[in-house]
Amino acid sequence: MVQVRMEASILGANDLLARKNRGIFARQGTLVVNLMSSPGSGKTTVLERSIDYLHDRLRLGVIEGDLYTDQDARRIEKKGVPVKQINTEGACHLDAKMVGEAFESIGEKLDLLFIENVGNLVCPAEFDLGEDFKAVVMSTTEGNDKPSKYPLVFREARVVLLNKIDLLPFTDFSVEQFREDVAKINPHAPVFMVSGRTGEGFEAWIEWLLEEVRKKRAEA
Amino acid sequence: MVQVRMEASILGANDLLARKNRGIFARQGTLVVNLMSSPGSGKTTVLERSIDYLHDRLRLGVIEGDLYTDQDARRIEKKGVPVKQINTEGACHLDAKMVGEAFESIGEKLDLLFIENVGNLVCPAEFDLGEDFKAVVMSTTEGNDKPSKYPLVFREARVVLLNKIDLLPFTDFSVEQFREDVAKINPHAPVFMVSGRTGEGFEAWIEWLLEEVRKKRAEA
Repeated sequence: MVQVRMEASILGANDLLARKNRGIFARQGTLVVNLMSSPGSGKTTVLERSIDYLHDRLRLGVIEGDLYTDQDARRIEKKGVPVKQINTEGACHLDAKMVGEAFESIGEKLDLLFIENVGNLVCPAEFDLGEDFKAVVMSTTEGNDKPSKYPLVFREARVVLLNKIDLLPFTDFSVEQFREDVAKINPHAPVFMVSGRTGEGFEAWIEWLLEEVRKKRAEA
Repeated sequence: MVQVRMEASILGANDLLARKNRGIFARQGTLVVNLMSSPGSGKTTVLERSIDYLHDRLRLGVIEGDLYTDQDARRIEKKGVPVKQINTEGACHLDAKMVGEAFESIGEKLDLLFIENVGNLVCPAEFDLGEDFKAVVMSTTEGNDKPSKYPLVFREARVVLLNKIDLLPFTDFSVEQFREDVAKINPHAPVFMVSGRTGEGFEAWIEWLLEEVRKKRAEA
């Protein structure tokens, strides 16, 4: 009971800071996307490919969440995009305080900020960072049971990316089943099929994302 | 600070219950293996294959940890092995209390108990369940950076299973690099290469496991 109350109060504090972040992002007209997935689903590779498409068209920034390392941040740096690493030192998700500080330290006016959360299908879904929306990346090698086993992350996401479609022929994964399962949990979320490795399928996802950036700008 | 103290006290309470579990397992001569991995690395398939090998030779039992569903437990049930489902209702790991109660409810004398933890490379590694050892399953499609990004789970494991080796030809995964990275974090952990899908590589893992069961019996 004490634990439950403590968790409620931590979440409450986080929500206040998330609201503050949301205000800052809104004033700057920055669209903020919180990328979530299990470890190894290819979030960083999807991000790299997306940056290749968007780099010349938008002012981009990235916040990288990892337990201890800065490997992903160094990968993004090579793309010439401002990036800030957050090390959670063992914590299984980013929180709004970490993100607010990281965004401040980037200190540039951005059209689009990607936040790559810690690789984890459970905890990150519970924490509002002030983002415009959450995106979940799942790969075809993870199996068809994931939406029903991790419903919160699929329910919280505005958009779903099914990655590693180049490996589809070598797996038992059913795309049709996946689409049905996602639709049961989250009927309005578009599902984009991509391969971070080959680049297949990125056009549709990028067009969708650009439309979201346009809408955000129109609001600002 | 309050949060840190609270976490320390939750972990302390867990450790006491883990010690109690360990005593119960020891008195019954049951070897207990805590299986950890990210979602989609194929823990359940590895477990099903392992059961096929061990079913006629040992009294087996399984505790299945999942957030909400009982899909994995139903898969194990089909193998004719006693299985108890734990639903964590959103919590990102099993704890010693849940496992103690589940083991009691199985109520059979077992040679080998598998605990399949919640799919998560972060939280489960922090919680002692009273097991003899932790085993981490990782798949070749998850990428080479996982040991360095999730060091705790690889440090805590007595043994590492590299799954989905049937997909190796279609990935950029380097087994040599993986072995080096694991050895840096955990020099004594054997690494078994397996494919839950094709059955490749299971003999060596099963032999190693049977030897652990023998040692445990000799102690009892």
